[in-house]
Amino acid sequence: MVRGARNEGGRLFGALSRLMAMPLHALAADALPSWNEGPVKQAIIDFVARATTKGGAGFVPPEARIATFDNDGTLWPEQPLVQGAFMLKPLRSRVKEDPSLAKRQPFKAILEGDLSELSTMDKSKLMKVLGVTHAGMTEEAFIRKVRAFFQHARHPRWSVPYNQLAYAPMLELLRYLRANGFQTWLASAGGIDFMRVISEDTYGIPPQQVIGSHLKKTFDDAHAPSVLRREARVAHVNDKAGKPVGIDEHIGRRPVFAAGNVRSGGDIQMLQYTRKRPRPGFALLIHHDDAAREFAYEEKDGASLKAAREGGWAVVSMRRDWRRIFDETRARTGNGRG
Amino acid sequence: MVRGARNEGGRLFGALSRLMAMPLHALAADALPSWNEGPVKQAIIDFVARATTKGGAGFVPPEARIATFDNDGTLWPEQPLVQGAFMLKPLRSRVKEDPSLAKRQPFKAILEGDLSELSTMDKSKLMKVLGVTHAGMTEEAFIRKVRAFFQHARHPRWSVPYNQLAYAPMLELLRYLRANGFQTWLASAGGIDFMRVISEDTYGIPPQQVIGSHLKKTFDDAHAPSVLRREARVAHVNDKAGKPVGIDEHIGRRPVFAAGNVRSGGDIQMLQYTRKRPRPGFALLIHHDDAAREFAYEEKDGASLKAAREGGWAVVSMRRDWRRIFDETRARTGNGRG
Repeated sequence: MVRGARNEGGRLFGALSRLMAMPLHALAADALPSWNEGPVKQAIIDFVARATTKGGAGFVPPEARIATFDNDGTLWPEQPLVQGAFMLKPLRSRVKEDPSLAKRQPFKAILEGDLSELSTMDKSKLMKVLGVTHAGMTEEAFIRKVRAFFQHARHPRWSVPYNQLAYAPMLELLRYLRANGFQTWLASAGGIDFMRVISEDTYGIPPQQVIGSHLKKTFDDAHAPSVLRREARVAHVNDKAGKPVGIDEHIGRRPVFAAGNVRSGGDIQMLQYTRKRPRPGFALLIHHDDAAREFAYEEKDGASLKAAREGGWAVVSMRRDWRRIFDETRARTGNGRG
Repeated sequence: MVRGARNEGGRLFGALSRLMAMPLHALAADALPSWNEGPVKQAIIDFVARATTKGGAGFVPPEARIATFDNDGTLWPEQPLVQGAFMLKPLRSRVKEDPSLAKRQPFKAILEGDLSELSTMDKSKLMKVLGVTHAGMTEEAFIRKVRAFFQHARHPRWSVPYNQLAYAPMLELLRYLRANGFQTWLASAGGIDFMRVISEDTYGIPPQQVIGSHLKKTFDDAHAPSVLRREARVAHVNDKAGKPVGIDEHIGRRPVFAAGNVRSGGDIQMLQYTRKRPRPGFALLIHHDDAAREFAYEEKDGASLKAAREGGWAVVSMRRDWRRIFDETRARTGNGRG
């Protein structure tokens, strides 16, 4: 008995030792349960295993484990574009002051409720709308408006607040990367201050890890407390070739992991920037091909999918690769931190 | 005996419980040994104790523990201005191509070796020099030049590499704040890419927590690998009213702790931005009054010291408050991570 117990203890100790020696990614039974088994899921797991295996050829030191994610269409739906819906009400107010706006694009499309049009609109035009609808006010006043929007507005199809529609597979991926020492960043064409209001609760990404388009701001200390005031002038459009520029300004390192989606080619440069380095990083491109559970749309010129083929990126078919799109539990509680 | 042992154990357990309940700052015998005892050191310790005491009136939740530090004159000497020294050699080369530069300010002063002049120069002028000396090249080429500078250049007075002259009391303060859950950031008027090369090794601050002035960059993917190219155009001057703007863009929260120094009034707005909030933060202003161990200089209009009096900031007298200025051990090894 004593001997048996000792062996038992020996075996237990051995098992524990092996367990302690295993990298974290191997411990979890399945860190990505919302992903169907297949080449994309396997490629992600293989990349993370290589990146965290000390001494291996693909090892990435912890300080270089930078992962950047587009937001609209990559982490949550972009039909309609969430920030477009946010602009609708203040734009209507502005039109009362200046009716000529209603005849000009892109204002006309937004006012006619054609938010799907907004989803293919150039982001610099969107920022102009933001300049018309949300300039002049202080940073604090803007943040209050964003908070109110996420509390009251509902998605036209699912009737839940927009920030409860984050994709479940992508929330798992964010948590999985963080558990393996990656720093996760938003690098979106959307407005930086708009996303910062919800980034921490929705994605577990703090405001200081958000990169986005923004208006020029000025510091106004004429009265106490001093404020930052938003000008009606675009300072940076974080789309297309603007994405690597924004990433460089905020992070100062090339990401080793980046995720974007098919729609306007807005993520191509970010994904190329990640891949084109001495040791290639991981590029993930999401293809919206699931009209039943979300939406199905293609890019007119097919540029993103073409770049993916040429660059050897992992292409996610939402229909085939994702077991589920949304987390219904999460949609009820609204708490995304893992 | 049994009873005595139990009491012993009880006392030990009680002591351990009390120890576990104490915040980290109280555990260290003296986390700031290079600081002389006095009102400034005490004010720092009191602020950190309040910020980390749960349920107390001054408690700051961990995610809001943002501390920003100016660099030149706050974390290391600014006589001469380090980035000015860095620009000297390439400026001489440029003058060979265009001799007219040598007659124009601020180029004339730099070429005459008058780097002390540079220390009081407007930072937007300095950025123009950078546009002349370091534009056109890729990000990678610029970084190689910065690395070479820190390897070979020596401070004219102490004959050591510039990045080995970080102030010992400030390195302790950075470590002390981090040990208490603060995120430490550089928020300097210096060039962002220049500081990023040395920020991690010198201050324990990773590149993604550096805010600074910068030239406009463009993404160039004509050849693989894609590169970022520096244009001869200033995108942001992170000085004076530009500091809160840069901080907002990178962090998206008001700092609760900020440190700057007397020289040009360049840190006043950052310190005001930190203080002017519902719950005032901590503002630290360093006064250079130690000609024997470092340098002594005053501001012509006394604006920073006046703002400190009005705002109730803590003013550091380098002569009185700092037991030592530099860490000689550190200067030999060049390793600043604690």
